[in-house]
Amino acid sequence: MPHYTPPLRDTRFILDSVIGLERYADLPGFENATPDTVEAVLDQGGQFVADVLFPLNQVGDQHGCTRHEDGSVTTPPGFKEGYQQFVESGWGTLSAPAEYGGQAMPHVVSTAFQEYMISANMAFAMYPGLTHGAIAALLAKGSDEQKAMYVPKMVSGEWGGTMNLTEPHCGTDLGLIRTRAEPNPDGSWAITGTKIFISSGEHDLTSNIIHLVLAKTPGAPESSKGISLFVVPKFIVNEDGSPGERNGVSCGSIEHKMGIHGNSTCVMNYDGATGWLVGEEMKGLAAMFIMMNAARLGVGLQGLGVAETAYQNAVHYAEDRRQGRALTGPAEPNEKADTLFVHPDVRRMLMEGKALTEGLRALCLWGALQVDLEHAASGEEERQLAGDLVGLLTPVIKGVGTDIGYRVATDAQQVYGGHGYIAEWGMEQYVRDARISMIYEGTNGVQAMDLVGRKLAQNGGRAVQALFRVVTEEVGAAKQVETLKGFAEALEKALGHLQGATMWLAANGFQNPNHVGAGAYPYMQLTGTVALGLMWLRMAKAAADGLAAGAENAKFLEAKLITARFYAERFLSDASGLRRKVESGSETVMALDPEMFRAA
Amino acid sequence: MPHYTPPLRDTRFILDSVIGLERYADLPGFENATPDTVEAVLDQGGQFVADVLFPLNQVGDQHGCTRHEDGSVTTPPGFKEGYQQFVESGWGTLSAPAEYGGQAMPHVVSTAFQEYMISANMAFAMYPGLTHGAIAALLAKGSDEQKAMYVPKMVSGEWGGTMNLTEPHCGTDLGLIRTRAEPNPDGSWAITGTKIFISSGEHDLTSNIIHLVLAKTPGAPESSKGISLFVVPKFIVNEDGSPGERNGVSCGSIEHKMGIHGNSTCVMNYDGATGWLVGEEMKGLAAMFIMMNAARLGVGLQGLGVAETAYQNAVHYAEDRRQGRALTGPAEPNEKADTLFVHPDVRRMLMEGKALTEGLRALCLWGALQVDLEHAASGEEERQLAGDLVGLLTPVIKGVGTDIGYRVATDAQQVYGGHGYIAEWGMEQYVRDARISMIYEGTNGVQAMDLVGRKLAQNGGRAVQALFRVVTEEVGAAKQVETLKGFAEALEKALGHLQGATMWLAANGFQNPNHVGAGAYPYMQLTGTVALGLMWLRMAKAAADGLAAGAENAKFLEAKLITARFYAERFLSDASGLRRKVESGSETVMALDPEMFRAA
Repeated sequence: MPHYTPPLRDTRFILDSVIGLERYADLPGFENATPDTVEAVLDQGGQFVADVLFPLNQVGDQHGCTRHEDGSVTTPPGFKEGYQQFVESGWGTLSAPAEYGGQAMPHVVSTAFQEYMISANMAFAMYPGLTHGAIAALLAKGSDEQKAMYVPKMVSGEWGGTMNLTEPHCGTDLGLIRTRAEPNPDGSWAITGTKIFISSGEHDLTSNIIHLVLAKTPGAPESSKGISLFVVPKFIVNEDGSPGERNGVSCGSIEHKMGIHGNSTCVMNYDGATGWLVGEEMKGLAAMFIMMNAARLGVGLQGLGVAETAYQNAVHYAEDRRQGRALTGPAEPNEKADTLFVHPDVRRMLMEGKALTEGLRALCLWGALQVDLEHAASGEEERQLAGDLVGLLTPVIKGVGTDIGYRVATDAQQVYGGHGYIAEWGMEQYVRDARISMIYEGTNGVQAMDLVGRKLAQNGGRAVQALFRVVTEEVGAAKQVETLKGFAEALEKALGHLQGATMWLAANGFQNPNHVGAGAYPYMQLTGTVALGLMWLRMAKAAADGLAAGAENAKFLEAKLITARFYAERFLSDASGLRRKVESGSETVMALDPEMFRAA
Repeated sequence: MPHYTPPLRDTRFILDSVIGLERYADLPGFENATPDTVEAVLDQGGQFVADVLFPLNQVGDQHGCTRHEDGSVTTPPGFKEGYQQFVESGWGTLSAPAEYGGQAMPHVVSTAFQEYMISANMAFAMYPGLTHGAIAALLAKGSDEQKAMYVPKMVSGEWGGTMNLTEPHCGTDLGLIRTRAEPNPDGSWAITGTKIFISSGEHDLTSNIIHLVLAKTPGAPESSKGISLFVVPKFIVNEDGSPGERNGVSCGSIEHKMGIHGNSTCVMNYDGATGWLVGEEMKGLAAMFIMMNAARLGVGLQGLGVAETAYQNAVHYAEDRRQGRALTGPAEPNEKADTLFVHPDVRRMLMEGKALTEGLRALCLWGALQVDLEHAASGEEERQLAGDLVGLLTPVIKGVGTDIGYRVATDAQQVYGGHGYIAEWGMEQYVRDARISMIYEGTNGVQAMDLVGRKLAQNGGRAVQALFRVVTEEVGAAKQVETLKGFAEALEKALGHLQGATMWLAANGFQNPNHVGAGAYPYMQLTGTVALGLMWLRMAKAAADGLAAGAENAKFLEAKLITARFYAERFLSDASGLRRKVESGSETVMALDPEMFRAA
């Protein structure tokens, strides 16, 4: 019953007019992102996911994955065929390096496509999504032999990849892992242990699955410093590159979970499975963080992807469903009732959805561009700035982005009234699917701690100062433009609150680190509010410029200006309250004994 | 895997020290609520729901209800036996009138018990919950004969009751209903039409089900003014009071929905079913509102009930699960890791859960007391005040209360990390169950409109002025007490924002009613923030008094004072932002054409 249309118009606006992709045409990699290519990717890629993957989304939710007695796992009906088409069409290879068979496009382009894929079918998109994470780790830390052996077939999609971190007793605290790696005489390792919550751990989509597994070598210290990373293929690869002997790794069960039923979430049992060290012994955590940083941006994108589809359907329903009359008198007196669209509180939810979704889209694409610039920008200073900004805002994109996904999906469901609660209409699936993104790849609380505990302080606060500078400069320029003045002033105030909260943390965190922890979440929300505000300033500026130049899509651009104003009224207004929460510190948060939380 | 302990300590504190139940001992009905009786209700009633109904909660979610080919519906395993025990123990009869076999206790006492029942098993609690709503309508509008025929067996629980409002094309806008009632020669009516989303519509728990059905009589106007209310028993009642001939009403299907799987949500087909008019023709909406006002308080209570169980389990998990180290250094160096409890952001979520849940409990019990006082208070002025306050705050208890339920359930799930997403652990069920309460009995947006569009203006704003007066007086008194001064000042500020927002709506709403609609939701949230603030002021005052008097439960009372301070820091701080949202009006909310919301 739900539908999905790729938001081409908005993506193009951001890429062309806000980011200005053509400005980067001279940088390495960007030569592959000509306007025509980008158009083709968005248009044809969008059509592919809408036609092939979206129809499998409710099916995947209803059927889920099935584990058979022999440990094999069947994906939902149609997934295998859909995946085959996905591989054949090459949509998975956009930003992979050319030497491994990829199309070597900038991340900013592949990110735009990935949003569409998530919108169409989040559970499906996770299969190639995890593979991309595993590729990133192999490229960064693997030996040349490992790269040659695994990466090309993972890029093509012939093989899948996974990340194996969590164990029953340890998630965030990876120092506790118990999976052991014992050296074999031939230089390989025997891996033994149990991993849980392994997305895409076992399935029928690919002829091999390349597991990346964290384990401890003999004598390794009992902390995260003692962790090593291993590559453990489901089928050990023959000399000719074909999958050979079955390895000692198997799926023990699949989890029954709230959502993303179409993705197989597995308990993986390693029973002396043969693995090979990736990178150096006891440097596994650093390798894992490479995967994780990319993955966190991808999870933030899940927030966007689900929000977009849910929002689109809510708009559709609001235009279609007739109920009640406009407060200002019947809008369509000849009909028995007006559409939901006339009701201000319905419109409020749709406008919030629009402001958050479009703002988050700009932020996700901007983040992806920084990943490109971090490597490709011509000047050292530009590379550093890009790296600083994306490092700082990765936890914000993940944490705030997935909170937005859940919020927008919940509000979109709300627009449907009772029908939103019924499975058939499809809206409740978006809420259930969106929920996981707030939890995995580090809970959003962990993201908040990453932001305040690590990213803020790195290099003497260089990254956050850079963010302040960027916002200040753009606000300053915008205050000179009549159309943008009001918004710029509102953003300036919000920035002031962020700066105040930052100073408060700097001044009080050293004395008591619990102040940092207690303020972490509202601080992340405040940073997100300002970051999205910056994106809305840029979109408003691009819209004002376009209107001044007599652009054809005047209504679209006017809507951007109005939505920016709505963002200021309804979201920038949260900044002072968020700052007060940060500055209230940890005293009341930490004061009560465990006993005082108990009911009886 | 989850557990539930009735929060006796907190309920007793609110009833004894905050509400001061003994002050009302002389009022009619309250003579049945002696301290011993209340103690017995909470203690034994709590034990009953924890022992009998809670173990059926996950079972109910997993099995759901089954409709058979003949239209009969089977409830989940154990529900029938559990219901039998519920009926035999008399827990459903607490506040029903004595003349119909009830125990004639005040609502404030039965509400305390109902919270426990919802916490233990929300889907189960809905069966007697709907029956209570139907009883309320029959008592208010039914003939003496109807009361005598139906009410005693509904009070005892032998028969169930339902409310039939919604149809496929109409929910909120009841003027659109198509179900017809044609007069029969014998004075009864033939009811024909389809009703959807009928909770407890068909099941195997009771020997008869008494449906209350909205329908239109011939020639009735095409608006909500043309609606009449009918009683349509599943089995027509014989002269001797036993269930007789099967009536022409049946369950066409049961909905597959996000949660509350243990309750049968039915499509009900009326095929010339025999019904009898309840009250006057075309006065059905007024009768329905009697049911609905009681039901809305009950739905607000669902927010509380689910929040409490979810919160309790999150506390338990945080004490049990070891992950990471305290920011201030290892709390338990001999263990491999500290518990989640040491992490400030986990503690923040638990404190938010505590502040919201305990605040909402006080508000729900206070609301129930006003329902009692509205009828039982000795002075006309007191009765009017109680009626004004509960009328004003009913949409707030429903809207804000159920938003709190979803939020606390979501945060409690978050504390579990990945395990929270897995069905086995039980936490995701609370989120799915809590979600419906925001939708049914009028979506929370409809509640917000009821507050700003109806309740604010009634009697020249008498109710909201009464609320302002109560808060102002209690804040004034509290400012004289050193322990309460800080909190009182914070609440005074929040009240100022509520007063400001109220004046803004009064000044601008007449000129443009869309301003009222656009501000409705943040206004409801702001009212809720102040109402919960008033509850926390009262709890803090009771705690301070208790401590000054050397009460035994000093730690419990100190925790109340700290949690009140936390509430001020983390929730009263939202007031200014909420006011700004109200005062931003409707211009940007209503500015965009439908087309500008579309993606492509």
